Amino acid sequence: MNEFNKPLSGLVTPRFGAIATFMRMPHVDLDQAQGIDIGMVGIPWDGGTTNRPGPRHAPRQMRDASSMVRPMHQTSHVVPSQLANIADLGDCPVNPADVMDGLKRVETYFKKLVAKGIRPLSAGGDHLCSLPVLRAVGEKEPVGMIHFDAHTDLYDGYFGGFKYTHGTPFRRAIEEGVLDPKRTIQIGLRGSMYDLDDFAWGEKMGVRLVRIEEAMEKGPKAIMAEARRIVGDGPTYVSFDIDCLDPAYAPGTGTPEIGGFTTFQAQQMLREMRGLHIVGGDVVEVSPPFDPSGVTAHAGVTMMFEILCPMAEDVAKGRSK
Amino acid sequence: MNEFNKPLSGLVTPRFGAIATFMRMPHVDLDQAQGIDIGMVGIPWDGGTTNRPGPRHAPRQMRDASSMVRPMHQTSHVVPSQLANIADLGDCPVNPADVMDGLKRVETYFKKLVAKGIRPLSAGGDHLCSLPVLRAVGEKEPVGMIHFDAHTDLYDGYFGGFKYTHGTPFRRAIEEGVLDPKRTIQIGLRGSMYDLDDFAWGEKMGVRLVRIEEAMEKGPKAIMAEARRIVGDGPTYVSFDIDCLDPAYAPGTGTPEIGGFTTFQAQQMLREMRGLHIVGGDVVEVSPPFDPSGVTAHAGVTMMFEILCPMAEDVAKGRSK
Amino acid sequence: MNEFNKPLSGLVTPRFGAIATFMRMPHVDLDQAQGIDIGMVGIPWDGGTTNRPGPRHAPRQMRDASSMVRPMHQTSHVVPSQLANIADLGDCPVNPADVMDGLKRVETYFKKLVAKGIRPLSAGGDHLCSLPVLRAVGEKEPVGMIHFDAHTDLYDGYFGGFKYTHGTPFRRAIEEGVLDPKRTIQIGLRGSMYDLDDFAWGEKMGVRLVRIEEAMEKGPKAIMAEARRIVGDGPTYVSFDIDCLDPAYAPGTGTPEIGGFTTFQAQQMLREMRGLHIVGGDVVEVSPPFDPSGVTAHAGVTMMFEILCPMAEDVAKGRSK
Amino acid sequence: MNEFNKPLSGLVTPRFGAIATFMRMPHVDLDQAQGIDIGMVGIPWDGGTTNRPGPRHAPRQMRDASSMVRPMHQTSHVVPSQLANIADLGDCPVNPADVMDGLKRVETYFKKLVAKGIRPLSAGGDHLCSLPVLRAVGEKEPVGMIHFDAHTDLYDGYFGGFKYTHGTPFRRAIEEGVLDPKRTIQIGLRGSMYDLDDFAWGEKMGVRLVRIEEAMEKGPKAIMAEARRIVGDGPTYVSFDIDCLDPAYAPGTGTPEIGGFTTFQAQQMLREMRGLHIVGGDVVEVSPPFDPSGVTAHAGVTMMFEILCPMAEDVAKGRSK
Amino acid sequence: MNEFNKPLSGLVTPRFGAIATFMRMPHVDLDQAQGIDIGMVGIPWDGGTTNRPGPRHAPRQMRDASSMVRPMHQTSHVVPSQLANIADLGDCPVNPADVMDGLKRVETYFKKLVAKGIRPLSAGGDHLCSLPVLRAVGEKEPVGMIHFDAHTDLYDGYFGGFKYTHGTPFRRAIEEGVLDPKRTIQIGLRGSMYDLDDFAWGEKMGVRLVRIEEAMEKGPKAIMAEARRIVGDGPTYVSFDIDCLDPAYAPGTGTPEIGGFTTFQAQQMLREMRGLHIVGGDVVEVSPPFDPSGVTAHAGVTMMFEILCPMAEDVAKGRSK
Amino acid sequence: MNEFNKPLSGLVTPRFGAIATFMRMPHVDLDQAQGIDIGMVGIPWDGGTTNRPGPRHAPRQMRDASSMVRPMHQTSHVVPSQLANIADLGDCPVNPADVMDGLKRVETYFKKLVAKGIRPLSAGGDHLCSLPVLRAVGEKEPVGMIHFDAHTDLYDGYFGGFKYTHGTPFRRAIEEGVLDPKRTIQIGLRGSMYDLDDFAWGEKMGVRLVRIEEAMEKGPKAIMAEARRIVGDGPTYVSFDIDCLDPAYAPGTGTPEIGGFTTFQAQQMLREMRGLHIVGGDVVEVSPPFDPSGVTAHAGVTMMFEILCPMAEDVAKGRSK
Repeated sequence: MNEFNKPLSGLVTPRFGAIATFMRMPHVDLDQAQGIDIGMVGIPWDGGTTNRPGPRHAPRQMRDASSMVRPMHQTSHVVPSQLANIADLGDCPVNPADVMDGLKRVETYFKKLVAKGIRPLSAGGDHLCSLPVLRAVGEKEPVGMIHFDAHTDLYDGYFGGFKYTHGTPFRRAIEEGVLDPKRTIQIGLRGSMYDLDDFAWGEKMGVRLVRIEEAMEKGPKAIMAEARRIVGDGPTYVSFDIDCLDPAYAPGTGTPEIGGFTTFQAQQMLREMRGLHIVGGDVVEVSPPFDPSGVTAHAGVTMMFEILCPMAEDVAKGRSK
Repeated sequence: MNEFNKPLSGLVTPRFGAIATFMRMPHVDLDQAQGIDIGMVGIPWDGGTTNRPGPRHAPRQMRDASSMVRPMHQTSHVVPSQLANIADLGDCPVNPADVMDGLKRVETYFKKLVAKGIRPLSAGGDHLCSLPVLRAVGEKEPVGMIHFDAHTDLYDGYFGGFKYTHGTPFRRAIEEGVLDPKRTIQIGLRGSMYDLDDFAWGEKMGVRLVRIEEAMEKGPKAIMAEARRIVGDGPTYVSFDIDCLDPAYAPGTGTPEIGGFTTFQAQQMLREMRGLHIVGGDVVEVSPPFDPSGVTAHAGVTMMFEILCPMAEDVAKGRSK
Repeated sequence: MNEFNKPLSGLVTPRFGAIATFMRMPHVDLDQAQGIDIGMVGIPWDGGTTNRPGPRHAPRQMRDASSMVRPMHQTSHVVPSQLANIADLGDCPVNPADVMDGLKRVETYFKKLVAKGIRPLSAGGDHLCSLPVLRAVGEKEPVGMIHFDAHTDLYDGYFGGFKYTHGTPFRRAIEEGVLDPKRTIQIGLRGSMYDLDDFAWGEKMGVRLVRIEEAMEKGPKAIMAEARRIVGDGPTYVSFDIDCLDPAYAPGTGTPEIGGFTTFQAQQMLREMRGLHIVGGDVVEVSPPFDPSGVTAHAGVTMMFEILCPMAEDVAKGRSK
Repeated sequence: MNEFNKPLSGLVTPRFGAIATFMRMPHVDLDQAQGIDIGMVGIPWDGGTTNRPGPRHAPRQMRDASSMVRPMHQTSHVVPSQLANIADLGDCPVNPADVMDGLKRVETYFKKLVAKGIRPLSAGGDHLCSLPVLRAVGEKEPVGMIHFDAHTDLYDGYFGGFKYTHGTPFRRAIEEGVLDPKRTIQIGLRGSMYDLDDFAWGEKMGVRLVRIEEAMEKGPKAIMAEARRIVGDGPTYVSFDIDCLDPAYAPGTGTPEIGGFTTFQAQQMLREMRGLHIVGGDVVEVSPPFDPSGVTAHAGVTMMFEILCPMAEDVAKGRSK
Repeated sequence: MNEFNKPLSGLVTPRFGAIATFMRMPHVDLDQAQGIDIGMVGIPWDGGTTNRPGPRHAPRQMRDASSMVRPMHQTSHVVPSQLANIADLGDCPVNPADVMDGLKRVETYFKKLVAKGIRPLSAGGDHLCSLPVLRAVGEKEPVGMIHFDAHTDLYDGYFGGFKYTHGTPFRRAIEEGVLDPKRTIQIGLRGSMYDLDDFAWGEKMGVRLVRIEEAMEKGPKAIMAEARRIVGDGPTYVSFDIDCLDPAYAPGTGTPEIGGFTTFQAQQMLREMRGLHIVGGDVVEVSPPFDPSGVTAHAGVTMMFEILCPMAEDVAKGRSK
Repeated sequence: MNEFNKPLSGLVTPRFGAIATFMRMPHVDLDQAQGIDIGMVGIPWDGGTTNRPGPRHAPRQMRDASSMVRPMHQTSHVVPSQLANIADLGDCPVNPADVMDGLKRVETYFKKLVAKGIRPLSAGGDHLCSLPVLRAVGEKEPVGMIHFDAHTDLYDGYFGGFKYTHGTPFRRAIEEGVLDPKRTIQIGLRGSMYDLDDFAWGEKMGVRLVRIEEAMEKGPKAIMAEARRIVGDGPTYVSFDIDCLDPAYAPGTGTPEIGGFTTFQAQQMLREMRGLHIVGGDVVEVSPPFDPSGVTAHAGVTMMFEILCPMAEDVAKGRSK
């Protein structure tokens, strides 16, 4: 039997008890972390939010909700904690008062994390959080990305030129060379628009943009077959914006758009990622003030678990080589 | 460039700011209105409600939620404010204490509106609000109607003979000759029943009644193909009762019925209305006291935008002739 | 005209008025009950709940919500109160402080009820409530069961050996010989797992386990065709755990699992039960503290009505023989 | 031991169980009522509401909340069910679609109730409900009244002349001669005003108007000493509008006014009514849609119990004469 | 009769109807404003918030709630709209993405407003909003201030030196010479502390700091007598942070502290300001995401009305000189 | 400078960030604990709840809310973390399925804790949790107690003889000799009653019972002066049932009683405990399902801080001897 971290047993403390960590995994401080394969991290920061704020509060609510996640996946029967050494690394440092300094703090933290050989699976925060994480995981070579979202987040700026908001992270990441647009697919795009600029720019760069209508028409399997072709065998990041789900399934988010995915559809898609080389992932834009009941957070952490399973399989595959 | 009204730019005031008007369009008083093509109007009245009250509060909540609607439609790329001169005309006069006087006030207001050449797109209020609006838009010739609803609203009376409630507007409109039953289709009908009377009467009059089971079986496109055949080229009214949506998508309504449409399905249907001669529309039965979060209102105003787009296209088509 | 109990007319008291009974049927005390065919009963007990408590409060909230149910079914046009003599028998005795005594009290009550020739349709309470009811309806011969749930509830024990929780009722019922595993089908199973034990045990016993993925793939009709084959003509119990629905449709429950059924899908399945010999049923795990709005309870009582209709038809068929 | 009705024992069914009746007293239909001294009645009607509707739903929520009330009063140690024969008479007939017919139905019901020698303690409904009850209890001779409220409810009309709203009941009752203004005191008046008319009219008629500032300054005992002097030994009605409480204590009401009483202050006042000849009472304006949690209803039913105790004492005193 | 703006009459549109403006006063754009004495302005900005965000959404919710405010004050019988020309000037420009630019935009707007001879009564926004307003009203000479708050907002910096947050506005205002510390009193201070620095600095500067314990002990009248002595006859600003109220009365705020004022106490204090030379005021820190019910906003706008009345009296006094 | 544990600095992680521990103190496992003076412990258990369940979820919600507590007390200026070595010990083991085993687990844990020289300050759970803690702190000699509650919790049994519920802990503790009734005072008692038994038994044993009416009349200082006399210099336990507060201040609890304390009054009382020999304390009966907003939990943890301060002072006094 391996010596990987195990989730706290429900026989010692019931699932609703104990200090809440992600999926009841032990809390390990990054500075003390040794031999960790996958680090779950909270990013309590919404410095890029332009309208309804709140995701800074998500990591706590998601940790609480994650107690509902049991160790084994329902269809693959994967038990991630048996395939990889996983820990809750706590929350990364942020700066609620300064966007540029906040970006720097998050980037520094995740570069240290990556330097330790850890793959990050983080819980935002708003979608700007993905940018500094990509700077870390894409530092050596640009990563591909499977991106679930109602929005492209490929805007150029906001409010007369602000370059770093939750609507711009992937344009910046492509410009900075940490994200490979030709290995990037965005799934679930929808909602009324200001103009066509963000779509046009993405398509020009080679990003595959999948509007919700196409996704609904073709279905999860076909869409994901294309996603697998696009990202191929290279290092791939998975970014799951909770607003890709319909507000009926995820009311607690800042920029809801009706007409989105069901959680079942999202799960069907995420389950097609087995075998991919997933080097990091995140679930972002859960906003507790807009859903104190925690229904949205529960959906969010279940999606984290759906990402964690193929990540852990990939870790194990790498180890066995 | 035309001189149509434009929505308030987010560069001046962020979307969550400014006094809330429908889709950030300027507020113009009906008496001062000149050259308006489409008037968005609130009807703060639920005088016809027989069970759980509240839609009188909807126009305000819907105006607030409508800030989330951006200028351009996501699939048609129509920008209604570039095709037609649109304004928020404010709320029409009502009478919360007297049903018959209330009906008269609303009718008078909308007849004045129609006389000015404005097409109304209103936010109820309960479904009785549609009757006085139909009296205005159907005054010269009866209109056809595409009607999304869980209920037929074709009852004869209520509580021993009351003729004017939110369950009777379209029976009255047909009787009064302002609504053409043979050019009317009702989509999404469901829920337990008192008896078969309302369905039988509707069918006898020639209304096309589409139960939810049929709509789910055939799908949005087929249903709407039939709707287009039924209403044809004549003047058509669109009435969207928010309870056609499943309560998961629209909990804030007075007479919810489970087993309804998703917002995606509703959008698919509304998008098949391009090219129709839409002379008016409404979204009714949003009830803020039963959903203070505004999720239902957000769905409602997005449906208003889905109706506004083909209305504006029809206005532009009429102008170009 | 028969002399069956009739629901309180809305012409005497509007639907939101009067002391709340299930579907506005008269309240009859079990001891006084004469000639009742179907007894609707509340079981205000969640003594088997291991995580988030609350279903003890469900019967009241469900009675309140049940006022929205009208007498006639929307597709079959069945009016149960015209086919069978139905009453609200109130709440059965429970014991909030002792699980074993609680089980005994519920069992005793339902044995008395069954001895009077009444078929029970109960509103839990948590899922442990089904066990003592099955002891009553399966006392003479084991019953078959159509079981809608996210979970198998076939665990052996909890927390180091506790045998009677809401995760174990059907293992106990099979062991006790009141439930026939070979005539049992479970539909909608999903969610992360502790291990494979409950599934393995069920399959070994001959229970047909339908995971949500299979149910979504095949669709309601195919799944129910198999259910009908499995339960056949024998006495059949219907148990509807509200958590078979997706949390978007039923947030008020203790162990939600994302990726579940819509209410429309559930209705489609329940409507395929016409002609079966349904000797009892329940709707369980509605938890009012987690949904004070009553949306979940409304879904729950509508499902009760969907079960009531084929039950009443079966009663009438039995009477006419 | 007397043979009065007893509340359902918690040893048979826990307080959260059983079909909800007021304070767990047996439900007796008015037509069958024999020997009842005090009848608790729901009036599910808000036909007089001019702004935020909802009190029609209060009787049910108040019955549910009333399970928290135990049989004995905390300071007087009075057990009303030992002093008087008390029943829950269910809800009285109303008309949600017609104010004048609604008034007539309620009046007819309460006249029948009074004719049977029953004293009513009702749960509204909005404050217009008090008018038809006063027509019954004040039919033979005008009653005095201790009235707790943020508003005088002495307006002459509404919206250009409507005479019967929840702002006018006591002006009507005085005009009709069923309420004696010189034996009437109103306590807790506050909130911004349209004009001075209602206060001026009340003072002209001899009503004692106690603004909140005076009540806070003098304190519960002094105010109630004056109330006792004003109503004297004659038949007295107690009307408790929940909006006399501060919204912090009773958020679920249609016309909240900040700066109101605490529940403790209200209890202190109500407890000074011992020995008065209380012939009827009501608690009105609880609005469940604005407080689904039931906190307001809980405050409301506790106030009902505070009124019930001195009523029962007065019944017993009358019997012993 | 004067020609001042009048609130929209409830006889035309009921209080819940019409596009929401502050207290139903007409909306006038600042650029068009002529002869306005008092301008009510929304500041949809919470750029200084360090913990739980949300006040950017307050102006809309407060406008909606302000419909409950009637024209006349309950104790003074002042009708502000008869004493001064009042308008809702809409929301001022802000910048959600940049604190320093946001401060500049707000300052510029209010300097223009003051230059037009208008006294501002604004609805925040977080407390940082007060700083740019003070820069406008205190530009010519430093103003005094009566400040109701749980916190001093006299911190020097935040998070390692950020100088402009909602915890620092009054330290900045004093340093900038627009606020006279010797004419400033802070009332209601409480809550656990980081250290004593903010209190010590304030006392050193001559600010009168009134902890909640002292305020409760002495009572509203004595505290306000001292406040009147401190501010004297000079130009005085009134800043009301909603968190001076206890969270029971104002749950919707970002930094709640238990043990606060009741609304009644706050009203008692505000009513002692008659005769002061009030040149501006604000109500800040209402946070709609933390109270979608609007109870907090309702308290907030009622406090705005309490400030508006003595402001209007002072305007009238100035005019009559 | 001492080497005591310090709360996580807000300069590293903002107050809303990081894994939530009580008051941001470090998490130390009991088995590893060395030199801890005061251990904050969660008891996620409501096995004694007889009506509305939920306190099992309180420790997590209270940890989250406790981030709002800053290091220094507002009036005493005590900084507990400078006077004593304090840690969050996590949650103690419980058993959600068996009351007797649960009691044993909690008792065993706290005896181990006490044996390590740690004073417990726990967050329930329901009030039955206090019994096993008292068995630990009162093992060597019975402790005195200052008990804030709406209820005596001195009932003998429940539901026909169940001896261990949240209504009986202190009768058991007195019977078991771990609580000294003559050194016990109960403050805030109120609410309707079943009978007089619990009060009579308490008085017979010598417990000082302070009804809310007496507490309101005499005021915090006088009541606490008596409390100090009663408990004297001996070891004293402080038990704070959140339902001693009025439901306006603490809606999230299972057995609310209107007419309770304000948080200000409660703080005034708790602040009179300086100098007492406080050997342990708890805050119980916070029920998150009945208040997802966390307002109640926030009140609860602030009361924990009020208890922690004099506890830490007593620890320091003991050390300096």
